[in-house]
Amino acid sequence: MKSCLFLLLLFTQIAVFAQSPLTEQVRKYRQTNEHTFLSEFMGLLSIPNVVYDTVGIQKTAAYIVKMMEARGIKTELLEAKTKGVPPAVHGEVKVPGATRTVIFYAHYDGQPVNPNQWAEGIEPFKSVFLDASLEKGGKIIPVPKATEPINPEWRIYGRSASDDKAGVFAILSAYQVLKKLNIQPSVNIKFFFEGEEEAGSTHLAEILEKHADKLRSDLWIICDGPVHQSGRKQVVFGVRGDVNMEVKVYASKRPLHSGHYGNWAPNPAMMLVKLLASMKNDEGRVLIKGFYDDVVPFTETEKQAIARVPSVDEQMQNELGFARPDGGGKSLVELINLPSLNINGIASANVGKMAANVIPTSATVALDLRLVLGNDVQRQVQKVIDHIKEQGYYVTRNESITDEERMKYPLIARVQVGKGYNAQRTKMDLPIAQDVIKAIQSTVKEEIVLMPSLGGSLPLFLFEKYLKTPTITVPIANHDNNQHAENENIRIQNIWNGIETYVALMKM
Amino acid sequence: MKSCLFLLLLFTQIAVFAQSPLTEQVRKYRQTNEHTFLSEFMGLLSIPNVVYDTVGIQKTAAYIVKMMEARGIKTELLEAKTKGVPPAVHGEVKVPGATRTVIFYAHYDGQPVNPNQWAEGIEPFKSVFLDASLEKGGKIIPVPKATEPINPEWRIYGRSASDDKAGVFAILSAYQVLKKLNIQPSVNIKFFFEGEEEAGSTHLAEILEKHADKLRSDLWIICDGPVHQSGRKQVVFGVRGDVNMEVKVYASKRPLHSGHYGNWAPNPAMMLVKLLASMKNDEGRVLIKGFYDDVVPFTETEKQAIARVPSVDEQMQNELGFARPDGGGKSLVELINLPSLNINGIASANVGKMAANVIPTSATVALDLRLVLGNDVQRQVQKVIDHIKEQGYYVTRNESITDEERMKYPLIARVQVGKGYNAQRTKMDLPIAQDVIKAIQSTVKEEIVLMPSLGGSLPLFLFEKYLKTPTITVPIANHDNNQHAENENIRIQNIWNGIETYVALMKM
Repeated sequence: MKSCLFLLLLFTQIAVFAQSPLTEQVRKYRQTNEHTFLSEFMGLLSIPNVVYDTVGIQKTAAYIVKMMEARGIKTELLEAKTKGVPPAVHGEVKVPGATRTVIFYAHYDGQPVNPNQWAEGIEPFKSVFLDASLEKGGKIIPVPKATEPINPEWRIYGRSASDDKAGVFAILSAYQVLKKLNIQPSVNIKFFFEGEEEAGSTHLAEILEKHADKLRSDLWIICDGPVHQSGRKQVVFGVRGDVNMEVKVYASKRPLHSGHYGNWAPNPAMMLVKLLASMKNDEGRVLIKGFYDDVVPFTETEKQAIARVPSVDEQMQNELGFARPDGGGKSLVELINLPSLNINGIASANVGKMAANVIPTSATVALDLRLVLGNDVQRQVQKVIDHIKEQGYYVTRNESITDEERMKYPLIARVQVGKGYNAQRTKMDLPIAQDVIKAIQSTVKEEIVLMPSLGGSLPLFLFEKYLKTPTITVPIANHDNNQHAENENIRIQNIWNGIETYVALMKM
Repeated sequence: MKSCLFLLLLFTQIAVFAQSPLTEQVRKYRQTNEHTFLSEFMGLLSIPNVVYDTVGIQKTAAYIVKMMEARGIKTELLEAKTKGVPPAVHGEVKVPGATRTVIFYAHYDGQPVNPNQWAEGIEPFKSVFLDASLEKGGKIIPVPKATEPINPEWRIYGRSASDDKAGVFAILSAYQVLKKLNIQPSVNIKFFFEGEEEAGSTHLAEILEKHADKLRSDLWIICDGPVHQSGRKQVVFGVRGDVNMEVKVYASKRPLHSGHYGNWAPNPAMMLVKLLASMKNDEGRVLIKGFYDDVVPFTETEKQAIARVPSVDEQMQNELGFARPDGGGKSLVELINLPSLNINGIASANVGKMAANVIPTSATVALDLRLVLGNDVQRQVQKVIDHIKEQGYYVTRNESITDEERMKYPLIARVQVGKGYNAQRTKMDLPIAQDVIKAIQSTVKEEIVLMPSLGGSLPLFLFEKYLKTPTITVPIANHDNNQHAENENIRIQNIWNGIETYVALMKM
């Protein structure tokens, strides 16, 4: 039995899938029009889109409206109830005879930039071509002339090159190709390009609620994030939830001379390290009572999907440069499907040149908890607070600690909790989910990765909450795209693949 | 036997000492000249003396030279071998018939200032009078006119008001009073005012070595630091040694998305908190192997002295605002006579508004070790390094970790060690030490505090090393003087007491 299973797995590991004629057709069209495609994309990348730059955001939205109108798409800006909020760009294509509607989501705003941190010659909004990634020694090359072939391993560097103007561009290019090839989509298509994702989608709920009628559909396709680190296309059915906590512990009211009072005056940094050390064992397992409770187990389909995700653990370990991962032998994909607790940052007084021989007055840690299906934000946070109390702490929400509190409680922790949200997971065996899988698999010969949940978080619960519609995430960017950081980039082949992916979904 | 001892202690606790006629004389002279004294002090305080301000330092030294010459003291500047270093101001008074020489040490440079951090109306170098300490609701009052009485509880605020221009001023004022009263000192007097103490006395060794001949004496009296927190005068016979260490632990080469990699990628902040938590128990006792070894036990005289130090534990706990000190019940004075390990600061990525959902690349802690007599800097540091290794760490001194190191060692710590120095302690039963004690006790009715060692550190070993001369520290500032911080101040009564103290030493 065991060896049969092994043979079966061996067989399926080397499965080669058939590429659809549609994909061939799209590829040929693209191959003869690559310069035109990229020239439009470079135009989009040249507009500053940092979320707080109101003018840049408006210009970006206007450029996208122009792109859509050029494709004959009926387009409008969806405003939030709150004034002055970046609008969502919305468009709709009705297809005669189509019974289903799919909305394609991407966002056109980008993370803030500090141009000084970018590599020499690379500016956030003057996108340039490199002949490889910077990490692999890539050099800046001239924009290819119309007669020059474009190497798909080249990269384009610029803010939002991958996150997420690549999404906007690949979706609109997919529609463009269908139009040019005179192929009618099989579903009604809606477009929804958010302008505030990098600011936490603060007004997304308002927009979804206010324009719910216009946004009805059978499925949201979320185009954001990277493909699998193995380089394979991936379809993601859920996200982890997320909530931030900040814990600050207190000692003396004023900084003390570490000589005159060291050994006697309590040290808040030592208190905090002991508190934090009590939260995890040496393998990174969270020791907080009940932390792994509530978790909804994966369905059989999900388990099978996870078993088929190619392992990238060794590759990533080499790329990131560490000898031993957390998790006591569990794989990356298993571990990102568990609730997590991470130190995002820690601070008390100073280190380096500013360090002084003091006993600090307080010490602070920023934590983030990732949640999986079944976890509830409030409940998960409460487990952490209970743990802090069990370590002997008096817990308060107030920044200023009274003298009475100071004299009464040896251990005082101020705990602040962010808004946070729960995980979301769409069932992989929904008929429409199966259609998505089939469509994307039809574009490549190698097996695509089906991921029940991303390790990261997106507020996808909003689409369920306000529109009662499932979401499936279909990312296209290379995993080493430096998303959110300096030197963001996209590998050109990933754009081409993305166009093929979205065409398949419009024709599924 | 037990009850006899108790009675004896009870008796000695209420001992009242006789004040010497000399002290009475000095006090009377001072009382009729308070405005003149303070006017000269305010002049000294008005000159910026931040150690890196070359011009201010020169002006301060020149002002002191002028003060000394006005008193008829033969004065010169002692330069270091290294050029451009703040000179020491040196002076000498030969006394006919005197067989012993005492050098009075203070320093005229001050800690850096950030004027924005000082309270409104209080500027570092425009010293002002307050009618009480800021913490007790003190308000700025006008400089008292010549006809107005001066309340000794008033305070003067300004950089170096206590640390350590008060020292320079009280020493020179003591000499001034003797001169005015036509009283001949009983010892040859030398003056040594350092200009680089707050920068770590980097060139003190050079100055002592180069000018050893001029600096010969039987005793150095170090005027720096505060009197005992009980308000009593104290004589301090030693200091703890000190050495700084910085430990940096490493994980991934680039910051990681805590969602995509959280639970799997090792978190350096979590590593560091576990490492630090292993160094101390919940009572603050250091768990590093052999940490309390090597300690030279106190002599009987020292033990008796410590037993007689008035307890300020409860008072300080109330003042500083914490419910439970470290040390498992040991007193402050016992604890500052043990080796210590303190976290001065800790940092990894960001907290507060700058916090992001990342797994940081590294985490850093600044530690300081205080050493007592018997500890050796190198040996004490090695214990900490050995402990880090025992926790499974590969320890390196290099900032940049190679890929090979990253892939070979799961736990990597970079350890940097400061210069540091050993503790120093002068025997309390030396005849000259006994004379110092008697002299200072003769100035007050209440029992003075004899402290075998200060919790803090000064490089007093240098005087032993280069000049083979014992040191005794005789501080005068109030303990709540905000030394090294904003709003530094001195209580006026402490200046008056200081003058009486130094007169007694010049006439011991």
